[in-house]
Amino acid sequence: MSSDQEENIIKKYKGYLIDLDGTVYKGAERIPTAEIFVKELQDKNIPFLFVTNNATKTATEVKENLLHNFQIDVTEDHIYTSAMAALDHLKELNIGKKVLVVGEASLKQEVQSAGFEMVDKDPDFVLQALDRGVTYQQLEAACLAIQKGATFVATNPDTNLPTEKGFIPGAGALTAFLKACTQKEPLIIGKPYPTIMAGAIKRMQLDKEDVIMVGDNYNTDILAGVHYGVDTLMVLTGFSQLVDIEGKDEQPTYILNDLSEWEV
Amino acid sequence: MSSDQEENIIKKYKGYLIDLDGTVYKGAERIPTAEIFVKELQDKNIPFLFVTNNATKTATEVKENLLHNFQIDVTEDHIYTSAMAALDHLKELNIGKKVLVVGEASLKQEVQSAGFEMVDKDPDFVLQALDRGVTYQQLEAACLAIQKGATFVATNPDTNLPTEKGFIPGAGALTAFLKACTQKEPLIIGKPYPTIMAGAIKRMQLDKEDVIMVGDNYNTDILAGVHYGVDTLMVLTGFSQLVDIEGKDEQPTYILNDLSEWEV
Repeated sequence: MSSDQEENIIKKYKGYLIDLDGTVYKGAERIPTAEIFVKELQDKNIPFLFVTNNATKTATEVKENLLHNFQIDVTEDHIYTSAMAALDHLKELNIGKKVLVVGEASLKQEVQSAGFEMVDKDPDFVLQALDRGVTYQQLEAACLAIQKGATFVATNPDTNLPTEKGFIPGAGALTAFLKACTQKEPLIIGKPYPTIMAGAIKRMQLDKEDVIMVGDNYNTDILAGVHYGVDTLMVLTGFSQLVDIEGKDEQPTYILNDLSEWEV
Repeated sequence: MSSDQEENIIKKYKGYLIDLDGTVYKGAERIPTAEIFVKELQDKNIPFLFVTNNATKTATEVKENLLHNFQIDVTEDHIYTSAMAALDHLKELNIGKKVLVVGEASLKQEVQSAGFEMVDKDPDFVLQALDRGVTYQQLEAACLAIQKGATFVATNPDTNLPTEKGFIPGAGALTAFLKACTQKEPLIIGKPYPTIMAGAIKRMQLDKEDVIMVGDNYNTDILAGVHYGVDTLMVLTGFSQLVDIEGKDEQPTYILNDLSEWEV
């Protein structure tokens, strides 16, 4: 545990960045302490933003999942996916509107809503996420476009996705394919990379000293905070356990069993 | 050029391992000096074996391509693909007959002809080659099988395939995908790896000191020979040029502009 915790001097944060799977729920399973925590933030009017690497769902779909399966009632403004962060970033880069998308229907919908034009050839960007319906032809088109100079952007680095079938290939496996056939490194948007953090904090209109990143996954949530200079709160309700962070140079600011131990 | 060449003492070899694309032909284009070279080997009854990383064609298809497009008339016994080498190796390993194949129709045909059973689940091996019709579902099945302990075998490491469309993704890009989602290293069969060399020399029933590897690609053909302890002859009719091997520690035994400069 950190010295802050030992001395019981816990900073008050003006805003919370909160991971979803493993932190607020666990697959289809509820985490009641997290539901109470979110309710407290709402009652006290403390700003928060759910920050997720999952680029296969729109903000509306994430919102509806939270409402219908976890009794968490938030607006779309409380959701920030790696797809949304990617599109915010592409707008800032301002080098074109034509995007070749390797991704699922929800991502394509977000791309169009954000004012980009989806193309099959000669794009300015290749935006690659997890696509569980991908074909060789689509990967070939992405490969040739990147070789011709399209900017290669990947939503998130997750190599696997936990499902009832097992750990199926994630966005990171498709990225590895495209890296191999193009010899190009993508810009990766999602946690633990900084782009999603920058975008989330910008949306919150807070300074990074005033926010804290809450998550269960050391390699994504906690390192995203550490690398971006944001305090971190690791909960042991999901993926990472204490044994996983033993001896790591970069430690979370706070570690808790669950969110009932935290006072907002 | 090597000291052997300078001193003009050229060893007589009892057998030739010969690459195809870039060495015997170049895509659809003829290399007449190579055709004459093959004819000389046939006239002098010198054993030779075409050794190719391409695992998308059967030996019969390769033979027919040589006959119809390049007037080279050989039997299937003169063809050794990375698919054939993989199957020879799987037989030697002798740890099962059930194979999940990520590959095209010709590979599947070779797998069945070699006495293996093709399965979708619980294979002993995953045999992965280039598959220009691959889907996410097939890659997912391969990923889950490798995670469960199936031996991961890749026919060849080529990340790209030159076509009229450009450098499309090769077998190596699919391997990168499966490596990323399994965190497992495959056994790679094709050049420059040793398995295909061992299999080819075994088929020729010659000692490795008595054969020479002829090819145009430094990174595959020449390094395959160098690493396996087989003399090498690099021709400048295909992919690699002199500038590509400048300063390399491992040099070909001989370098020629084309095969008209070689006496069998």
